Amino acid sequence: MRLAVIAGDGIGPEVVAEGLKVLREVAPDVEPTHYDLGAMRWQRTGELLPDTVVDELRGHDAILLGAIGDPSVPPGILERGLLLRLRFELDHHINLRPARLFDGVTSPLADPGPIDMLCVREGTEGPYVGNGGVLRKDTPHEVATEVSLNTAFGVERVVRYAFERAVARPRKHLTLIHKTNVLTHAGGLWSRTVEEVSAEFPEVTVAYQHVDAASMFFITDPGRYDVIVTDNLFGDIVTDIAAAVTGGIGLAASGNLDASGTNPSMFEPVHGSAPDIAGQGIADPTATVLSVALLLEHLGRTEQAKKVHAAVAFDLSTRSPQGPVRTTDVGDRLAALAGG
Amino acid sequence: MRLAVIAGDGIGPEVVAEGLKVLREVAPDVEPTHYDLGAMRWQRTGELLPDTVVDELRGHDAILLGAIGDPSVPPGILERGLLLRLRFELDHHINLRPARLFDGVTSPLADPGPIDMLCVREGTEGPYVGNGGVLRKDTPHEVATEVSLNTAFGVERVVRYAFERAVARPRKHLTLIHKTNVLTHAGGLWSRTVEEVSAEFPEVTVAYQHVDAASMFFITDPGRYDVIVTDNLFGDIVTDIAAAVTGGIGLAASGNLDASGTNPSMFEPVHGSAPDIAGQGIADPTATVLSVALLLEHLGRTEQAKKVHAAVAFDLSTRSPQGPVRTTDVGDRLAALAGG
Ligand SMILES: CC(C)[C@H](C(=O)O)[C@@H](O)C(=O)O
Ligand SMILES: CC(C)[C@H](C(=O)O)[C@@H](O)C(=O)O
Repeated sequence: MRLAVIAGDGIGPEVVAEGLKVLREVAPDVEPTHYDLGAMRWQRTGELLPDTVVDELRGHDAILLGAIGDPSVPPGILERGLLLRLRFELDHHINLRPARLFDGVTSPLADPGPIDMLCVREGTEGPYVGNGGVLRKDTPHEVATEVSLNTAFGVERVVRYAFERAVARPRKHLTLIHKTNVLTHAGGLWSRTVEEVSAEFPEVTVAYQHVDAASMFFITDPGRYDVIVTDNLFGDIVTDIAAAVTGGIGLAASGNLDASGTNPSMFEPVHGSAPDIAGQGIADPTATVLSVALLLEHLGRTEQAKKVHAAVAFDLSTRSPQGPVRTTDVGDRLAALAGG
Repeated sequence: MRLAVIAGDGIGPEVVAEGLKVLREVAPDVEPTHYDLGAMRWQRTGELLPDTVVDELRGHDAILLGAIGDPSVPPGILERGLLLRLRFELDHHINLRPARLFDGVTSPLADPGPIDMLCVREGTEGPYVGNGGVLRKDTPHEVATEVSLNTAFGVERVVRYAFERAVARPRKHLTLIHKTNVLTHAGGLWSRTVEEVSAEFPEVTVAYQHVDAASMFFITDPGRYDVIVTDNLFGDIVTDIAAAVTGGIGLAASGNLDASGTNPSMFEPVHGSAPDIAGQGIADPTATVLSVALLLEHLGRTEQAKKVHAAVAFDLSTRSPQGPVRTTDVGDRLAALAGG
């Protein structure tokens, strides 16, 4: 397995080291190549993502990313120039974010009930395309625009992927989240696409919710959700709500998939670089290890994925609730569990 | 007080009746004029909001709205043609949504702590402008766009209003919520405006959060917020999260303000028309009564507003937690408390 590793900034290298530790335990054939990208490289060289690096990345089976970002870099530079550029260049149209309340994990909700949802967020369209601009900047007549672009091609492939995932799950339920009553143009395309594709999946029951209503139900009744499909920006928001109610982004894994298999998919914990705790060895690597499980699953290594997932589930169910985390201890335990 | 009343659909008329009951108790000079608008009128006559009605509305001191909407109407018709049109025609650029956890109210959070925030949502710009379109509809090459429009004029006035509210509160803290790392054009305008206006309010401390991070903190640490300022769409989402953690939209009030005073402001509960429980007399009118308190406050009737607010606070602190609601009982109690 040729694996490109982008450890990145802040706690990125620390959590990625543990992710690789666990990965090597279940997949000894992994051959990691490390790429130095992120805030530090940009500070040093002014480079974000050289085209040659993009080409090299394409030669791998998958990418593991730690975290990118540093407060010293103005907002947008690393996001648009590196993180989002990777998603767009590698056509990561599926942004996959499972949210499950593991046994032993404390939810901020008083009565969470069982939560096990799979959010399928679109990854290459919507308000993320970077289409927009500024007129008369810094004057009282400034106008700033952002354009959300949505195509039948782009919406159909993510909706179809979501149905495929839904039909393979016990509950076979899919919820579209959008804001069709206000964003009528984009909303119409999304609704019609879900309706059309649903004809091919008669076993899947379909629901629709406006993003504002869904944001409430994620808190008052998260157990109702199975698979969710939504646009890039709504997905950014609701997956963080889903992460919050299932124990926080310290446990949230994600996959940026090119479902066609043309480009390598990229797996990353949802949390950021957390510069405040970087270098102290106290970052929780669990989200990275769960991202490794998603990576293995995506590569068809189902048994290896199951081992990693089961190791995390067991470890979480036996962790002391408020105990401090030592990054390497968690990695050691998870590696031993996954390998044993 | 010349009050235009749009009771609307579903439970709208039921909750508005109780809101007026309470209002009459504290403000006997209220002269309500009822306007028949909403799904039923549209079904009957095809009319949404005749220009003559808009003109008449302008002749009032304020507007009280119940709820608009019915499942029989396709998404967008009533929202764009009536609700949003009212906001745009009457220049309701401030969408004011307080979120406070009243004593006696159960939060879905295990450990909510005290919550008392004031969300100031922009009301006439952003992705709500209806700017966008569809190309090659119903073909595999369909493209649908939505344009978020943001102007210095529009952003500055809502940011300034938010600072004015913040400086008048004990904590004097303001949080801007946006997504500046992705929506760099609009985000830049919002950030720069907050920075500029903050110079006039040195007592106010300012924080910034991305909308995804904020959506988590609303759940894990809602007590940190005081005043929030945000764009139209982010505001739609985060105010519903704020409502959820403070007991649900059954208690959430809102004001759509033209802060310049040129047009009458409009007050409405955040909940919808709830057709499933309409006509049964079991809708909770509390959000409407709290909207009446906002209305009185906006008209400078501070003492009357306090009476209504105190009545709700007292009633909530003594309500039996799971007791069924009878709409008229709640209205009777609140009217007696506010008047007594
Ligand atoms: C860092 C940012 C560009 C990114 C996003 O908005 O997609 C992050 O919030 C995420 O969810 O992966
Ligand atoms: C009904 C809809 C148009 C409206 C909005 O999105 O603003 C509602 O959700 C609200 O928050 O008042």
